[in-house]
Amino acid sequence: MRAAIFKGPRLIDVGERPDPVIQEPTDAVVRVVLGCVCGSDLWYYRGESPHAVGSIGHEFIGVVEQTGADVRGVRPGDLVVAPFIYSDMSCPHCLNGSTICCVVGGNFGDGRIDGGQGEAVRVPLAGSTLVPVPGAGHTDETLRSLLALSDVMSTGHHVAAVAGVKKGDTVAVVGDGAVGLCAVLASRRLGAERVVALSRHPGRQRLAREFGATDMIEVRGDEATHAVLELTGGIGVDAALECVGTAQSIATAFAIARPGSTVGIVGVPHGQVPFAEAFFRNTGWRGGPAPARIYIPELLGDVLDGVIDPGRVFDYETDLEHIAGAYRAMDERRAIKSLVRVGAV
Amino acid sequence: MRAAIFKGPRLIDVGERPDPVIQEPTDAVVRVVLGCVCGSDLWYYRGESPHAVGSIGHEFIGVVEQTGADVRGVRPGDLVVAPFIYSDMSCPHCLNGSTICCVVGGNFGDGRIDGGQGEAVRVPLAGSTLVPVPGAGHTDETLRSLLALSDVMSTGHHVAAVAGVKKGDTVAVVGDGAVGLCAVLASRRLGAERVVALSRHPGRQRLAREFGATDMIEVRGDEATHAVLELTGGIGVDAALECVGTAQSIATAFAIARPGSTVGIVGVPHGQVPFAEAFFRNTGWRGGPAPARIYIPELLGDVLDGVIDPGRVFDYETDLEHIAGAYRAMDERRAIKSLVRVGAV
Repeated sequence: MRAAIFKGPRLIDVGERPDPVIQEPTDAVVRVVLGCVCGSDLWYYRGESPHAVGSIGHEFIGVVEQTGADVRGVRPGDLVVAPFIYSDMSCPHCLNGSTICCVVGGNFGDGRIDGGQGEAVRVPLAGSTLVPVPGAGHTDETLRSLLALSDVMSTGHHVAAVAGVKKGDTVAVVGDGAVGLCAVLASRRLGAERVVALSRHPGRQRLAREFGATDMIEVRGDEATHAVLELTGGIGVDAALECVGTAQSIATAFAIARPGSTVGIVGVPHGQVPFAEAFFRNTGWRGGPAPARIYIPELLGDVLDGVIDPGRVFDYETDLEHIAGAYRAMDERRAIKSLVRVGAV
Repeated sequence: MRAAIFKGPRLIDVGERPDPVIQEPTDAVVRVVLGCVCGSDLWYYRGESPHAVGSIGHEFIGVVEQTGADVRGVRPGDLVVAPFIYSDMSCPHCLNGSTICCVVGGNFGDGRIDGGQGEAVRVPLAGSTLVPVPGAGHTDETLRSLLALSDVMSTGHHVAAVAGVKKGDTVAVVGDGAVGLCAVLASRRLGAERVVALSRHPGRQRLAREFGATDMIEVRGDEATHAVLELTGGIGVDAALECVGTAQSIATAFAIARPGSTVGIVGVPHGQVPFAEAFFRNTGWRGGPAPARIYIPELLGDVLDGVIDPGRVFDYETDLEHIAGAYRAMDERRAIKSLVRVGAV
């Protein structure tokens, strides 16, 4: 099969890989329909973190081609959403809501398991990992939104959920990347009345507003803190959602969170939390990688019902042969998020 | 009146202070019955943090002597528990559960307001701050437990509550000081099935067991982590409660907390949290100073019903004239917590 192959920083090739086959009775082989590039793919693309040479990508939807003898819940022919990790959903960590720590789970495109940026993927623990999509004949718009559930929308939902966003809340989203934009959408979905987006980019501001942002802050650092505090009568927001991971964005999130609130953090940490200051304001934190598998069934219903359309974060698209351009567009910040068309439904 | 007066590190004097009087219509004057020394009092005692020369102490129970014209809810003659800060209970922070950030609240014994280690205290915002105790003729044992609600038991409850301790949980308490011991009691009260106490001190171990600890870990650091993980089948505890605040105890708490859990932290931070490691295990944190005023009414019922007896943390007692000895006993770790008898009920 054809697949994207990582050969080193800024070297994304497309080449031949062995067709995946069932290796364990709990495996399925999935033919990829849509894949995409994650903000976290840029770390190894930019040489900022190591990655094995080989198959890449961890977000995809596809059609089940074959299942092992022990696979229950999905059948050949099913359209499925793959969460960005595979998990058994029955170990203590999965049962406690942390599927990313599943004791037998793992990552796609990790050097051992194929990634989602290729024509097909062997999915371990397929019955507990893949989420079948009911119905048929879904529009392209729907398929794009289903793809977003694989990671970015589940992550946006996660950051709002762990911060306890509820009806009537005032929320601030730090970060206008695809996850931040999905966090705006998720916050409104959870009932937030006011959603303050921190963004200086006109295109992203526009999508944030379409996703339900009510206020826009175009400054950063202390200026952003002052602006949010002014908007909230000096109190701070009920939920600050950190979707970047830099020292500055983390500091801003804690500074604008009201005492007693829980900061949601999904931006991968490249800075430290202001621990002592947060302690004396009763401001805690929850977050980390999203247990997408837990959220997908709930979000999928809203996608199919047309309630949410997270697929709108994809503003660049290409095919598998030109995937290098999808990386470049995100690396150069020309794209919020790049979609890769791989196969037909 | 007579009162303890801080004159500098290790210099606790007892001298004359002006009798407190009503200054604002929301004030009450409370005659102190029992006061005590807090672990946090040791910071300035040891010269580790600054403190104004003057009145000290922030934990007390007493009898209302006089109330201002606008005080509702407490009357002269009432036995009352004072939470360790005063608050209006109606500002956004109080309504959001962070009374310690009350926009008009403040601390006892802060250089402007008398402390609880004296014969009387002017209590600002008395109607919203003081909690009257129903009934009369309470035993000395009950009075000691009521005193514990002022801070240490409310703090023990806080760390368990923010960590989400619930029926059937396995909890680990890092720290065998008075707060840690109260956290054991609070965890059992909230339904924890198994409570692992980290303690190397025989007397504190005994009280921890009497408060409901089911397992005892006598080692520290990595050894303690291994021991707790072994006890929990490699999974970690449902709730790790950090009641010390050192770098090592914080690291231990995060290392033994299972993925997806929220570490409760009430030990005043003298170290940093392992942010990135916690992030990738979905392990968050909540805590800070306890909103004692919110918890006292609920805990008070259980004290009066004999369900909990947190007053047992007081294992040293003296009178106001000898309060310096109460500090010394705690400084030298001869006492878990020192009680100071000031007046009659």
